[in-house]
Amino acid sequence: MKILVLNCGSSSVKFKLFKTEGGYAVLARGEAQRIGMPGTVIRYNAGKKKDIRLEKPLGDHCAAVDFLLSLLVNGTTAILGGLEEISGVGHRIVHGGEYFRTSILLDRQTRALLEMFGDLAPLHHPPNLAGIDICTELLPGIPQAAVFDTAFHQTIPDFAYTYAVPYRYYEEYRIRKYGFHGISHHYVASRAAEILQRDLASLKMVTCHLGAGCSLCAVGGGKSLDTSMGFTPLAGLVMATRSGDIDPALVAFIA
Amino acid sequence: MKILVLNCGSSSVKFKLFKTEGGYAVLARGEAQRIGMPGTVIRYNAGKKKDIRLEKPLGDHCAAVDFLLSLLVNGTTAILGGLEEISGVGHRIVHGGEYFRTSILLDRQTRALLEMFGDLAPLHHPPNLAGIDICTELLPGIPQAAVFDTAFHQTIPDFAYTYAVPYRYYEEYRIRKYGFHGISHHYVASRAAEILQRDLASLKMVTCHLGAGCSLCAVGGGKSLDTSMGFTPLAGLVMATRSGDIDPALVAFIA
Repeated sequence: MKILVLNCGSSSVKFKLFKTEGGYAVLARGEAQRIGMPGTVIRYNAGKKKDIRLEKPLGDHCAAVDFLLSLLVNGTTAILGGLEEISGVGHRIVHGGEYFRTSILLDRQTRALLEMFGDLAPLHHPPNLAGIDICTELLPGIPQAAVFDTAFHQTIPDFAYTYAVPYRYYEEYRIRKYGFHGISHHYVASRAAEILQRDLASLKMVTCHLGAGCSLCAVGGGKSLDTSMGFTPLAGLVMATRSGDIDPALVAFIA
Repeated sequence: MKILVLNCGSSSVKFKLFKTEGGYAVLARGEAQRIGMPGTVIRYNAGKKKDIRLEKPLGDHCAAVDFLLSLLVNGTTAILGGLEEISGVGHRIVHGGEYFRTSILLDRQTRALLEMFGDLAPLHHPPNLAGIDICTELLPGIPQAAVFDTAFHQTIPDFAYTYAVPYRYYEEYRIRKYGFHGISHHYVASRAAEILQRDLASLKMVTCHLGAGCSLCAVGGGKSLDTSMGFTPLAGLVMATRSGDIDPALVAFIA
């Protein structure tokens, strides 16, 4: 079985194509960076084939996914006879609100529900949805799953996810700490337990996700107990394009 | 020598009258709470005299200072022949910006400079200035000093006071972490060293100021190295009327 994993970020698309027979292995990987900006760069690698690096204008995330998938099936870079060899697609989705506490299979109904969370992660949610939609077009009938960056943090207790603002903001608008990078923190915690040869359920740790976006997570017994990001991915650590925590009064003062 | 210490807070005035001969001692203390609101309460105590508690409408901080000082010199509560027995007044002032790194004597020039910081602590600065002005009126010619809540934190290093926002906001508007409750954190650190019988210069500690407003301070070698409040007294811990840190994106989202 061949599984495509797709991560449509704010200005990038990354994918890996896995095979599952005889243990997981990566058959191909690729990415497009600086999508919709000058100097879009594509990188592609398929096992023993030569690494590809090229610059090519790609106007949006759909164009980027389309081009990356074409490398899998066309010309000298091809390793598949056709996209129909792919058995399933997994999407990294930034925001599942309080609604999605675990990964889901995508269909017309769940895809529609995802629209709910658009204004909660304005940099990331539109490319997430674009990735789903272009895959639905290019890989018709192939099952797609959404794996949420928020789901792991749904175990954060109410006293940690509740802000000291009027409670009706939570009741009416679901304003609370959500946390992000949950897929990463979940993996890192599990992998740390493996490396330490300890039972994850017995461990307390702080996991670190340090990329262009950065967050920390307090993990106890394998569950997220608190994290540095908040209602949006703006809060917490200083990041490449996000201030992280600042005095909230600064926002109005600067405005 | 008799020294009046005055703390005009957001909705309260508190004072103590100290004598300095033969060691500091409190001759009288008093406060007005809920100024400008229904149910203003005044408390007053002058040593062995009976405690006073009364409710009386006081429209603003000037009226409150005026009334409290009248208790020192009039009627059965009096312990002074006249206000001219007071040799000096110390005011707790919330904001001294980067300009005032230590306490100052107030005169027409320094009083005018204080106006600079009004928009940085909108709840506290106007009552602070009102306290100075009513004392100038009621105690003419008596020296007054301003003791700043920000001054102790002026030793916080640049990497801790600088926000991850465009640097021109600092250059043009002095947007940075200031920190507050410095008078309290400074005192608590010194007092802790006394109680521990250790040299303050050798100690690292976290001091806690927990009232209606709350803050923490990292003190190393007797100097403030970081604190939970920020550009304004809104940031940091959850407080009685302030949210403390929230995701800064919440402000615009709620708006």
